[in-house]
Amino acid sequence: MTNEEDIVDPAHPRYESLMIRKKVAEAGAKGMLADSAMIAHGRGEAFDYLLGEQTIPSALEATREVAARLVRAQRPVLSLNGNAIALASQEFLTIASQLGCPIEINIFYRTPERMGALIGHLKMLNTKLGLDVEILGGIPDARIPDLEGPRGACHSEGIFAADAVLVPLEDGDRCEALVAMGKEVLVIDLNPLSRSSSRGTVGVIDEVTRVAKNLIQLIPEKPEPTDWNNNKGLQAALDHITKSMADKFE
Amino acid sequence: MTNEEDIVDPAHPRYESLMIRKKVAEAGAKGMLADSAMIAHGRGEAFDYLLGEQTIPSALEATREVAARLVRAQRPVLSLNGNAIALASQEFLTIASQLGCPIEINIFYRTPERMGALIGHLKMLNTKLGLDVEILGGIPDARIPDLEGPRGACHSEGIFAADAVLVPLEDGDRCEALVAMGKEVLVIDLNPLSRSSSRGTVGVIDEVTRVAKNLIQLIPEKPEPTDWNNNKGLQAALDHITKSMADKFE
Repeated sequence: MTNEEDIVDPAHPRYESLMIRKKVAEAGAKGMLADSAMIAHGRGEAFDYLLGEQTIPSALEATREVAARLVRAQRPVLSLNGNAIALASQEFLTIASQLGCPIEINIFYRTPERMGALIGHLKMLNTKLGLDVEILGGIPDARIPDLEGPRGACHSEGIFAADAVLVPLEDGDRCEALVAMGKEVLVIDLNPLSRSSSRGTVGVIDEVTRVAKNLIQLIPEKPEPTDWNNNKGLQAALDHITKSMADKFE
Repeated sequence: MTNEEDIVDPAHPRYESLMIRKKVAEAGAKGMLADSAMIAHGRGEAFDYLLGEQTIPSALEATREVAARLVRAQRPVLSLNGNAIALASQEFLTIASQLGCPIEINIFYRTPERMGALIGHLKMLNTKLGLDVEILGGIPDARIPDLEGPRGACHSEGIFAADAVLVPLEDGDRCEALVAMGKEVLVIDLNPLSRSSSRGTVGVIDEVTRVAKNLIQLIPEKPEPTDWNNNKGLQAALDHITKSMADKFE
């Protein structure tokens, strides 16, 4: 990151988005992310831009549903990858503390260095915030069935045994494998067309930092789960995008 | 880039897109790109995904119009940034050779190292392809009016004097400043909602590698310029996207 790139003008119309981007770049510099994480972040930025960089009403409803299902679950787990930790680690530690549940780190391109940087970062924040959240992921001892490679590695006392898993920014294969295990899979994803969004139990089409902040507000309200129609929420997000595109230039 | 990330399975449904991404990552490793280039590439990927990773009919029409205007121009210039060079330097050298025009490198985050890496890369390819394309950008001696900072630097014999400039992946401010100079600004951008797409003379909503390959085919045909309606092309791209989103989940 050059110095020039570090400067973000608060008057910029996309200031929030640029500050979020800065967090990803900083995490990258700390060795917490694969190179592809920057590209993945850019993809998310494009969808957020199409949503107007805001929590749309259907996303807030979906977030309430996620809160309800996390509160109801006997063994919830927050499954975090590098980007989720880069963007909202403080918020996710707070949520785990509210729920009394562990965080399990699970990254697509697993290297000991990256895993060490992510665990170290969360443990440091845990101490700084005076929390005692259990951080899993370092020494996985179980496997997600039908998922090859390092992505399938998990903890027997974490994701493997969980009844509900919050998966921000998940890859499609892993989302489907978790659903196939019979878990409630609660997805946060900016792309309403992704496999994760559509195959999860509840898909929140919103930016991960905004969702995490909303969850912190909603969890203490202990909302009741509803008979959730996931497709309806995804179509609402698509309709929001298409509305802004109709007759734009005519 | 880890080795694991290097492997792209040709059977992957998004193989082409992943190979394009690989080029950006490799250019990054060679010091040709700012960190933000990876994020910008990811944004483009999202729009390309929405377009179906294909050249849609309106984009091919726009590409033909760009070819026509480049052929008609007295002093055309190809203005290339880091991502354009990472993705399609060989193709742009071929186009410059077809037109007998210079390439001018102009990058948003200018450092001597990055500029040197980009110029060196193009000169190496120039020799390798047996071409003699003039590569400008190293020692700018003129300025684009009303554009602050290094982005405003240009060559008096290149962009400054050009009547038509091809700008793949341009930033909005610079596009507008070039239009204000009275030039024909021929934009390649995957985002139909960007300022560059809408403020340029002709906006091609397509992936830069595909456009460059199409231009190589179209330029020798010497097409005639038409009375181009840029808004119509942009709306066609938006309509293509919205069509794929309508009633997707219902």
